[in-house]
Amino acid sequence: MKLKMQLQCPMPTLDFDIITLGHGSGGLLTNKLLDKGVFDLLKNDLLDERHDGAVFPVTTGKMAFSTDSYVISPIFFPGGNIGELAVNGTVNDLAMCGAKAQYLSLSFIIEEGLTMREFWDVLLGIKTAAENAGVFIVTGDTKVVERGKGDKIFINTSGVGMVHPKAQIARSRVNIGDKIIISGYVATHGMAIMSVRQGLEFETDIVSDTTNLNHTVLQLLDVFGEKIHLMSDPTRGGVATVLNELARDTKLGIELHQKAIPVLEDVHGACELLGLDPLYVANEGIFIAVVAPDAADAFLEILQADENGAHAAIIGEVVEAHPRQVIMHSTIGGKRVVNMPVGEQLPRIC
Amino acid sequence: MKLKMQLQCPMPTLDFDIITLGHGSGGLLTNKLLDKGVFDLLKNDLLDERHDGAVFPVTTGKMAFSTDSYVISPIFFPGGNIGELAVNGTVNDLAMCGAKAQYLSLSFIIEEGLTMREFWDVLLGIKTAAENAGVFIVTGDTKVVERGKGDKIFINTSGVGMVHPKAQIARSRVNIGDKIIISGYVATHGMAIMSVRQGLEFETDIVSDTTNLNHTVLQLLDVFGEKIHLMSDPTRGGVATVLNELARDTKLGIELHQKAIPVLEDVHGACELLGLDPLYVANEGIFIAVVAPDAADAFLEILQADENGAHAAIIGEVVEAHPRQVIMHSTIGGKRVVNMPVGEQLPRIC
Repeated sequence: MKLKMQLQCPMPTLDFDIITLGHGSGGLLTNKLLDKGVFDLLKNDLLDERHDGAVFPVTTGKMAFSTDSYVISPIFFPGGNIGELAVNGTVNDLAMCGAKAQYLSLSFIIEEGLTMREFWDVLLGIKTAAENAGVFIVTGDTKVVERGKGDKIFINTSGVGMVHPKAQIARSRVNIGDKIIISGYVATHGMAIMSVRQGLEFETDIVSDTTNLNHTVLQLLDVFGEKIHLMSDPTRGGVATVLNELARDTKLGIELHQKAIPVLEDVHGACELLGLDPLYVANEGIFIAVVAPDAADAFLEILQADENGAHAAIIGEVVEAHPRQVIMHSTIGGKRVVNMPVGEQLPRIC
Repeated sequence: MKLKMQLQCPMPTLDFDIITLGHGSGGLLTNKLLDKGVFDLLKNDLLDERHDGAVFPVTTGKMAFSTDSYVISPIFFPGGNIGELAVNGTVNDLAMCGAKAQYLSLSFIIEEGLTMREFWDVLLGIKTAAENAGVFIVTGDTKVVERGKGDKIFINTSGVGMVHPKAQIARSRVNIGDKIIISGYVATHGMAIMSVRQGLEFETDIVSDTTNLNHTVLQLLDVFGEKIHLMSDPTRGGVATVLNELARDTKLGIELHQKAIPVLEDVHGACELLGLDPLYVANEGIFIAVVAPDAADAFLEILQADENGAHAAIIGEVVEAHPRQVIMHSTIGGKRVVNMPVGEQLPRIC
């Protein structure tokens, strides 16, 4: 897929190979960089206006608005690059609000010295991810900082989209008895990044599962509507953090069943090797749904039929007991508290 | 004003003085940093939801959406800090689209080692600027990168707001005969930053004019509506860049009258000292409007009565002659081409 994109979009011939401070000046060099690199590649009517912002029509309803800055290192990793991640991440944050991402903003902070080749590959990742998700990049910004004041490239995407008319997603809707469903293998993205992180490299075939989840989520909202009480994507801090925040904010308890939690064998092995609990490792291409008990089985069935949900599972439930705590029933029959992590095993995972 | 804000919002007592990588982990440390530092200080109903994005009602109309990343150095400068700049900048980009900024996103990329004191002062700048502009921070993100991979703090803000029903702002509406109006002194922000930039310090009382322009612009739209053909804020690259882009995109010519261009005496002196043309220096608290000739005098009169427009002036007009070129009539009677700058005199001015 990526190869195909690159063949369709050869890098334009430019009179520079390296991005310098001048490319962030707003002047002629910035125009040179953006004309071919951004405006031609990501072309659409709104972006073409090239004004200080994009203007589009909206109709009465509920809108979702989300933002994330991406600082992942390395910027190219098994299964993707920072550009794809930046598009998918914000598309997915909107999906977690029950919204269909429609328009994204795109803002670069480039460290001088980034090669045009690297920038182009990141842009191709953005283009591919945006096309797959069905979103348009409509406004943006490019800054360049001195060497040693950044790290190749940081990307912010923000996005807006209309909330599905049937969606009623809020922490306050989470009830005792609700089922906790995970859409796929946990810890895959985090371990893919760790495997290539400087000083920590290990041989593995693990690739990041970064992808857009909006089509999957919208299809589920079509069918289950208000039966879906909450959705959240367990990125930084992993599943353990999302569920601890949920327990804290709802003042309810959460029970998890370790043997139900899907983990790829390679990921499980790598976690054991590094002494990591997969529940604390960052994810990208999966989400957690908290679903009314009478809808959970049907939800799981439809999710499992989706390309992003083949390995989905019911991993636990919301309980009255032990409020504010997440308790794990382990494979060997014991029980333990799953705490909120204090820090992170590894920074800059997204 | 700023002193007052700080007295009202004493820094909370925390068990850390320095922001570390762990504060960007998404775990307990992130929660500690954000609970007091962001959620309490910038409190509103939408932010309080603490979901992956904010959800709000919209009604039928036209919406504007804009983004900017702020990498200014130093982060505290005469007249403001990076936090105020980040709010004002995006509010103003939306105003240039004819929109009233309503909701902002806020995303930090912090270099480890930033003190909590510095972060708090930036947050106070954000709070003050948001209150003055009448916007709400509704969603956000915080990342921390290693020492030497960032520079204290970078901030992205994105924003949305509804376009004024009378606004018809587009490059395609610019006509021959239109007047070019500037809302205030040029080059003030850029020279304020230069005066404190390492290796370049010079003694001066110049302070940045960073401010929100939305109230001013909306009042003008109320009165003049479709008579305002275009607005733009001449930040990076200065007035020269904005006008060159306008000439390029409209394929029309622009004439400027040097003696009409308002420049503070101190700024003029500092520019001479450094050999800079004020037209190329970055601005913050001013905008350029391209206005129908029959409305220009009345527009100027109302703008001059506004606190942000006391020094507004008609500085030129759109002409049929010399298409795609900006020509300056100098104070001494000559004519010269004002080219688009190639690079920037100084990087990281916003």
